[in-house]
Amino acid sequence: MKKSFFFLLVCFLIKQSVLAQSPEALKIRKYGSENAIKIISEFSEFLSIPNVASDPIGQQKTASFIMEMMQKRGIQNTQLLNATTPNVPPAVYGEVIVPGAKQTLIFYAHYDGQPVNPTQWAAGLEPFNPKLFTNALTKNGIDIPFPKDGNYQDDWRIYARGASDDKDGVVAILNAYDAIKKNGLTPNYNLKFFFEGEEEAGSPHLNEILEKHKSLLQSNLWIICDGPVHQSGKKQIVFGVRGDTHLDLTVFASKRPLHSGHYGNWAPNPGLMLAKLLSSMKDEKGKVTIKGFYDDVTPLSPSERKALDEVPSVDEQMKLELGINDVEMQGLNLFESVNLPSLNINGMQSGNVGKMVSNQIPTNATAVLDLRLVLGNDWERQQQKVIDHIKTQGFYVTDKEPTDEERSKYAKIIKVIREDGVNAQRTSMDLPIIQKVITAVKLTTNDQVVLQPTNGGTLPLFLFEKYLKAITVTVPIANHDNNQHAENENIRIGNLFDGIVTIGAVMMMR
Amino acid sequence: MKKSFFFLLVCFLIKQSVLAQSPEALKIRKYGSENAIKIISEFSEFLSIPNVASDPIGQQKTASFIMEMMQKRGIQNTQLLNATTPNVPPAVYGEVIVPGAKQTLIFYAHYDGQPVNPTQWAAGLEPFNPKLFTNALTKNGIDIPFPKDGNYQDDWRIYARGASDDKDGVVAILNAYDAIKKNGLTPNYNLKFFFEGEEEAGSPHLNEILEKHKSLLQSNLWIICDGPVHQSGKKQIVFGVRGDTHLDLTVFASKRPLHSGHYGNWAPNPGLMLAKLLSSMKDEKGKVTIKGFYDDVTPLSPSERKALDEVPSVDEQMKLELGINDVEMQGLNLFESVNLPSLNINGMQSGNVGKMVSNQIPTNATAVLDLRLVLGNDWERQQQKVIDHIKTQGFYVTDKEPTDEERSKYAKIIKVIREDGVNAQRTSMDLPIIQKVITAVKLTTNDQVVLQPTNGGTLPLFLFEKYLKAITVTVPIANHDNNQHAENENIRIGNLFDGIVTIGAVMMMR
Repeated sequence: MKKSFFFLLVCFLIKQSVLAQSPEALKIRKYGSENAIKIISEFSEFLSIPNVASDPIGQQKTASFIMEMMQKRGIQNTQLLNATTPNVPPAVYGEVIVPGAKQTLIFYAHYDGQPVNPTQWAAGLEPFNPKLFTNALTKNGIDIPFPKDGNYQDDWRIYARGASDDKDGVVAILNAYDAIKKNGLTPNYNLKFFFEGEEEAGSPHLNEILEKHKSLLQSNLWIICDGPVHQSGKKQIVFGVRGDTHLDLTVFASKRPLHSGHYGNWAPNPGLMLAKLLSSMKDEKGKVTIKGFYDDVTPLSPSERKALDEVPSVDEQMKLELGINDVEMQGLNLFESVNLPSLNINGMQSGNVGKMVSNQIPTNATAVLDLRLVLGNDWERQQQKVIDHIKTQGFYVTDKEPTDEERSKYAKIIKVIREDGVNAQRTSMDLPIIQKVITAVKLTTNDQVVLQPTNGGTLPLFLFEKYLKAITVTVPIANHDNNQHAENENIRIGNLFDGIVTIGAVMMMR
Repeated sequence: MKKSFFFLLVCFLIKQSVLAQSPEALKIRKYGSENAIKIISEFSEFLSIPNVASDPIGQQKTASFIMEMMQKRGIQNTQLLNATTPNVPPAVYGEVIVPGAKQTLIFYAHYDGQPVNPTQWAAGLEPFNPKLFTNALTKNGIDIPFPKDGNYQDDWRIYARGASDDKDGVVAILNAYDAIKKNGLTPNYNLKFFFEGEEEAGSPHLNEILEKHKSLLQSNLWIICDGPVHQSGKKQIVFGVRGDTHLDLTVFASKRPLHSGHYGNWAPNPGLMLAKLLSSMKDEKGKVTIKGFYDDVTPLSPSERKALDEVPSVDEQMKLELGINDVEMQGLNLFESVNLPSLNINGMQSGNVGKMVSNQIPTNATAVLDLRLVLGNDWERQQQKVIDHIKTQGFYVTDKEPTDEERSKYAKIIKVIREDGVNAQRTSMDLPIIQKVITAVKLTTNDQVVLQPTNGGTLPLFLFEKYLKAITVTVPIANHDNNQHAENENIRIGNLFDGIVTIGAVMMMR
């Protein structure tokens, strides 16, 4: 009776209270700090290789570098996994077969980065010349040399494209394996490694790679190491992602640029036409006014709703940090709002601004719309809703440059290019193998681990379900203020080393 | 009786019908075609010198080149006229004193060009490497070498920044003087020459130059050689210009760029905020909805209204040429609509589009508004109306980057930079000296000469009235489809040579 009471008490403590870190976690943490020079030096070399879609040579070099990283670590069966379409950046694969292990974990990160516009980076920063700062630039961090004594501080940052999205994922996974191996620890699972090269392009050929290499990629769980930890700095585990697709819109006016004096008032202005169209898509409360936009949404399950309620609120902190007074979608907090589909203007342009502005009526105006999707949405159906709305605003919709005949026939002409898309995905947090991941991550920290039903960002997770019948769970490591997808991308040093511990603990889960 | 009838008949023919060209006009025309190689070669060298505000060295070289052009032609008292503010592109001055002449004509053109974005120019074209084409690019013109036999065709075009706005004006004026001199003709007026270097920047120091050199610049009439002829190809004389000013708008959202997945729906999008603001400024019929926008306008006089009615309509021709189905301002033809103030979006930008697009919520969105003014408008008052409107849309207006305190206090923040401006100007077409200009130009063509009360474009003509009590009239020569102020600027060869005749005839007016 006493024993049973004690057992119940332990269970209660494990479930409800602050947990101590496991011995494995502590060993991995020690390995990281003792090998900081080697880890950062390799990371820095890795970050120096351009990894953007417009630079296929850089992409190849990046993939080769990862191959070498794995081979150095004794990871077996390393290979590039090509798509069936030629000239596609390959995925990089490797594996560690553990004698006696019956199940397999496969660790995912991606090595490609978002496109860069170097002119938008802060003075002194270059996307592919990693630099160390004493803090975030926005927190008055200053540029310092990489320390020779390996004494890295948690708040320091490395600035470079891919530093946090997602070369840090590759580095955390491979160093976590190093830490386990060098500590003589034996995982309970076979470990596989899969590093994608087209994630930032929307993974257009991942389906081919998964299908072609289906048997090699069999596993019991995919651990996706991408995205940021919770804004509070707490670790989090994410069970789903929003889907994403894009529409490129171009509104046409005069065939040639016009002098704004000689024709202003008379000739249509494409910027104004586009502004009126975009305005019509959302109301003043941030709600999308496109017909049926919020239909199709699969509601959260009771356990997901409960997890969402337990996520610490960051609204006031984030408003202060971002310098905004109000949110776009009235009445919802950040985590509630990412559980709805969104429509965002990624970019828009007509003519020139700043030093290059000229007194003209431009020939066209362009906007790129980003449509995020949640479970239940279909990306092609969501695009169609937007296109139908554009038509209700009096536009003639084409997918090519308008012909002279079309120009003479229609007052409002728009070219709409439908980009590819991916649907949303959500894994049940009640599955036994998922519960093991939760426990492993909890044993690396004395703090709460946040459980997010859905991340706002997008990973092509539905493809793993579709082509491999796989289960996925996301274990992110990057700091939330990492400027991923924009200029001045950076990783916080503390997040990198803590990330190695998190991933290592998952590798060792029981 | 018979004699009087004959006289009336002549008057009737002169007023109503096609006139024969004057002997002077024919001599000047002959000089142009016989000296085409020399004229174009010098023009081409002139066009090779960068003449944009961002290149002060190029501007200096351009001014020196004009000095040499004048000295070669025996024009006297050549000098650079500086402003009182240092480091301002000078005006270039010269004069020809005619023995016995009691009155003075002063010929104006400007040598600076609009800013260039070379990447927007057509393949094979560079702003400062003039090239000859067999026709407009839009009419399938092809690149040909400059002919060694000097046999230039009227429809050929030279492509370069400043080719038509307004280095052609400098070249037409100086070669018109050459043609007169080499033909042994003696003008009835002293001739002065004044070439400005800051017109495309809005002539911010022209007031200083006019005031400082007031006595040197005394004259009975300023002949402004800038802008295009009528869209029908007919010559025109223009009696006024619209004024112009600008507002640079920047709407602020998050202090740092945000991942559109993690924050889309929650964080405000600056592009959407700007789109809603711009949309609110005009209705669907192209009418500006800003309070009082059309107040202050001085109505046209009866003779101006009559002249406007006689201007050939070009609406259908222009719609076809420009590939547009409808006009912005409903119910007005082109020339009526430029007799009203306008609000035009010269450029707008938020984030990136095209290859550089990334999945972000940008930090800000910018637009440059161009406000054209007519007689009666005051540029600062017109700016204020727009700013007052922006406030009615809920914006907090600042002229600096917002502080953290402002960011935490206001949901909608906009930075508005008020650029300098110039007011509109209109000269009465009934003045005797103006009637002489009209007669001189009519004697260079067998076709109608269009009389325009107001040009849509802007020249700082009110400054000549204000500082010199001067009278101005505009005699343009460039083809209307010259892409001035934009990429692929060009001059039609026929317009250049006919322009020399027009200007020469005005120099010889009686």
